[in-house]
Amino acid sequence: MIDKICIIGVGLIGSSFALGLKKANKIKTIIGFDEQKSSLEKAKKLGVIDDFSLDISQALSGVQMVLIATPVNSFKPILELIKPHISAEIIITDVGSTKSSVVEIAEMVFGKMPANFVPAHPIAGKEKSGVEAADANLFKGKSVILTPQPATSKNAIGQVTQLWQGIGAKVDIMTAEKHDALLGMTSHLPHILAFALMDYLIHSNPDACDYAAGGFKDFSRIASSDAVMWRDICLNNSTQISKHITGYQRSLANLLELVEGKNSAALEELFASAKSARDGWLQD
Amino acid sequence: MIDKICIIGVGLIGSSFALGLKKANKIKTIIGFDEQKSSLEKAKKLGVIDDFSLDISQALSGVQMVLIATPVNSFKPILELIKPHISAEIIITDVGSTKSSVVEIAEMVFGKMPANFVPAHPIAGKEKSGVEAADANLFKGKSVILTPQPATSKNAIGQVTQLWQGIGAKVDIMTAEKHDALLGMTSHLPHILAFALMDYLIHSNPDACDYAAGGFKDFSRIASSDAVMWRDICLNNSTQISKHITGYQRSLANLLELVEGKNSAALEELFASAKSARDGWLQD
Repeated sequence: MIDKICIIGVGLIGSSFALGLKKANKIKTIIGFDEQKSSLEKAKKLGVIDDFSLDISQALSGVQMVLIATPVNSFKPILELIKPHISAEIIITDVGSTKSSVVEIAEMVFGKMPANFVPAHPIAGKEKSGVEAADANLFKGKSVILTPQPATSKNAIGQVTQLWQGIGAKVDIMTAEKHDALLGMTSHLPHILAFALMDYLIHSNPDACDYAAGGFKDFSRIASSDAVMWRDICLNNSTQISKHITGYQRSLANLLELVEGKNSAALEELFASAKSARDGWLQD
Repeated sequence: MIDKICIIGVGLIGSSFALGLKKANKIKTIIGFDEQKSSLEKAKKLGVIDDFSLDISQALSGVQMVLIATPVNSFKPILELIKPHISAEIIITDVGSTKSSVVEIAEMVFGKMPANFVPAHPIAGKEKSGVEAADANLFKGKSVILTPQPATSKNAIGQVTQLWQGIGAKVDIMTAEKHDALLGMTSHLPHILAFALMDYLIHSNPDACDYAAGGFKDFSRIASSDAVMWRDICLNNSTQISKHITGYQRSLANLLELVEGKNSAALEELFASAKSARDGWLQD
């Protein structure tokens, strides 16, 4: 049984996980650890964590699990920081947006992937960041993808699964590679496209936004996501993201050709199948 | 005073305009005209219109205004159809998504732009279409752009302005060319990008959508818009849309280069300025 855990990084995801566990009464004690003392103080005040320490050995004292909830580029220094204080019994897990790179970093720091390290990624979020945006129901009904290695402990996988299910999430298991290809398409690509749209507007006609309707708002909302997190996602899943941008460029070039050629029938067909696919997949 | 109008096309926009007028008690009688008898019957049943006729001379009998609310490609046959039944006193207006092409079509059909024709475009909508989706508040607080010509009657502009303001919209006046450039960027481009994303997904990995999070839903929602309307927008604003797609392609190619080069600083800077521009412009 897990009754004490340490959450490293009390941003949106770490704090929402903590709040969810508290609401579901799944954990006795949640300890916070973060670079920003002010965030930890806020998290304690908001009831997201029970206590915090700026000293990692104190923060990890007596815990059965540590969850890393920071942008992926900070994983190497964080794993190096916790390594001396982690016994083989403590389960390590994370919520990093990319998974192959997390496995690589862990192998680099620990020599090989620890049997108790269960890489994980909840497919949920919002464009607000920070502990103030934390939401106990953020993961309710959402998927969490675990990407264990062949040698990962079944017990550790089970414990991590139980916590996520306990706060209402659905747990799926796949390889880190499959995760990165999938998310590269459904999450990283749309974010890149939205960031590129804002970049284009900024450099061509910023005043145009006075006339932006709902479509533009929907589209660009995700461009309000955290810049450091998205920088790290790009750095850590660059192969998959490049592949999907290149694939998308072909679709866009094809559409441009249809517009320039005023190809009425092909335009209508493309729009109708996009609409029917979208309507079929997603109901809201 | 306008006390009887005819609305040609009882889709989302025409029906929402009618409902808004009814709610605000601005018009005594609203007559519907549409290709689809079933839509007219539904509109009458839902209280969107007072009556309808499938005969255009009857539909226009005694009206002081006719509003055309159909996709832009149907404007030529519709203007030809109404021309014999329109006296110089009847105000013609529309809600077409492109404006230069509407002016061109009207000049073609009438020889020159009628002084009582006030081209208009409400910047509002949703991805649902049809009379069932009609909403009396759809235009509340939204902009409506009028693009009168130098010779357009001041009285006609005033009457059209009053109706839109009466249902809560803000009226702006600009040239048809400026409208098409502006909307090409803030509306047409994001829609094209969303359609291209769906097209890419359909052809590469349709199953991926099981793992699509909020960002993807926001982004692709606008790809559920009406295919015929968007076909017509592409055909009628192809120059501006091509220009904006080409500009966007440059922004995307630049971002791809940063991802492939793992240019950490430039990625973070681009994402941060996109986020700050987006946050500054739009609050939700």
